[in-house]
Amino acid sequence: MSTGIKVFAPASVANVACGFDTMGFALEKPGDEIIARLSDKPGLRITKITGAQGKLPYELEKNTAGYAALKLLEHLGEQDRGIELEIHKKMPFGSGLGSSAASAVAGVMAVNELLKRPLEKRDLLPFAAMGEELASGSLHVDNVAPSLIGGIIFIRDNATFDVHRLPAPPGLYASVIHPKVNIMTKDARNILADKVPFRDSIAQGGNLGGLIIGLYNSDLGLIKRSLKDVIVEPQRAGLIPHFYEVQEAALKAGALGCSISGAGPSIFALSANSLDAENVGEAMVKIFSDNKIEHTLYLSKINQEGAIKY
Amino acid sequence: MSTGIKVFAPASVANVACGFDTMGFALEKPGDEIIARLSDKPGLRITKITGAQGKLPYELEKNTAGYAALKLLEHLGEQDRGIELEIHKKMPFGSGLGSSAASAVAGVMAVNELLKRPLEKRDLLPFAAMGEELASGSLHVDNVAPSLIGGIIFIRDNATFDVHRLPAPPGLYASVIHPKVNIMTKDARNILADKVPFRDSIAQGGNLGGLIIGLYNSDLGLIKRSLKDVIVEPQRAGLIPHFYEVQEAALKAGALGCSISGAGPSIFALSANSLDAENVGEAMVKIFSDNKIEHTLYLSKINQEGAIKY
Repeated sequence: MSTGIKVFAPASVANVACGFDTMGFALEKPGDEIIARLSDKPGLRITKITGAQGKLPYELEKNTAGYAALKLLEHLGEQDRGIELEIHKKMPFGSGLGSSAASAVAGVMAVNELLKRPLEKRDLLPFAAMGEELASGSLHVDNVAPSLIGGIIFIRDNATFDVHRLPAPPGLYASVIHPKVNIMTKDARNILADKVPFRDSIAQGGNLGGLIIGLYNSDLGLIKRSLKDVIVEPQRAGLIPHFYEVQEAALKAGALGCSISGAGPSIFALSANSLDAENVGEAMVKIFSDNKIEHTLYLSKINQEGAIKY
Repeated sequence: MSTGIKVFAPASVANVACGFDTMGFALEKPGDEIIARLSDKPGLRITKITGAQGKLPYELEKNTAGYAALKLLEHLGEQDRGIELEIHKKMPFGSGLGSSAASAVAGVMAVNELLKRPLEKRDLLPFAAMGEELASGSLHVDNVAPSLIGGIIFIRDNATFDVHRLPAPPGLYASVIHPKVNIMTKDARNILADKVPFRDSIAQGGNLGGLIIGLYNSDLGLIKRSLKDVIVEPQRAGLIPHFYEVQEAALKAGALGCSISGAGPSIFALSANSLDAENVGEAMVKIFSDNKIEHTLYLSKINQEGAIKY
């Protein structure tokens, strides 16, 4: 058995206030780690899973990372290649931080690196997306794309992988807090109304465009005015205890904006620099501490690399 | 009586497919012309109106250009200054080309130039918007802003005049056809449903973001994929005879995109260069000619100057 290679795929924040299903960005940490090794025994196998509290299956067809890796191997005509995967979950499930996306990305990244990069990193996207689809039931790359290629990503269209990396002002920093409460992504999706007021749709588009222009121009004032979600946040806020208190505290502490990360329960804030982000993080922590809700805080600049071999 | 000054404010295309109420761009022509002169008789007066077939009132409070100019003069504390305005309408009413916006812009521009620019051009926007509001009944700057400052304009928020100029790929060229059929802006607004499918709202946001990114990156492929309106166009297309035939002909002739200009009935197309725009224009003309509908075609690059004194 060979020494193998080790990859890391980061967590990510999808939706980014006004960008429901169209935006996401990568964090430095947390993330998932996968070790891949060549083996004499033909075919792909998962040999070890840690950090998953028994929640992840070893069957490839049911495992996000395994399924994504398998789809890539099939595409490469390498499905008989002997490969072993060790999956080390190093981030929480159902946190709204793209846990399954990180697993899927790590799976395809590990196999691609082990096989000496038959595909460009960016071309791994469809296969990682298949893993994410297995986990979430729908094809969305707002977590997968930033976890894979890093940066702030705009998705014009999921079905055709029409994704674009946006510039970010130097210094832009995220404070992300994960309260240990359970939200099922499926429930968070089902709660959303099928129709939205046209007026809100226009306002959301205004903010989305404003955010993109603010990012291109490093216009922090415009970014701040634009980081608002008038459609999804009001519908989902009730699922997260103390959401509005945390948001208010973050904004008071100097955040440019603060909203729900993915489907929640994590809450993210963006700040102009790391010092602001620390203050914002403290303010968020205080709300959950005062209310005796277990939580984890992550402070991170925008991760511009995405998944890496290391 | 002094010689006076002459200003021109151009027509504009609002909505730009995916940018309902959030985008507009200025054309080179047509547009409105206003001549302003100092007079010994105190106060602002409209002394002459041409090209309006008697449809425009001389009372300041009811005239788009006069009202906008008056509001500017009041702001400047110059409402008693003797000023005469000659309004030369050089573009059609109710065309979907921002006719009232051009009048309002020309009005404030003329007065500001006559008084030797007490305000920066951009700061005229609120006053021009008041003129437009008088005409349309709502505060929207998606025609006023491009007519005033030129370029492709994104409006994050109308109420706070949060407007931003977008870059345009060199060569980007518009073909705009105005069929002589009547649509009332009010009717075109009333036909729109109060609620839209959430899925469509997301798709529209995807295209809006894609268009902005395409403009920043001069990515013509992305611009082409993004120039789609899945919300408003399907509701309004029926008001414009042969709309879908014109659109199909324009796209076949090489347009990047084609949709309704403002509230219609004008139809605009954007092309990568002037040659494509000519072919597209010809294709659009053919549909209306074949159907014996009187029409006017305008070919224009993006007007980057907006209103000018000349």
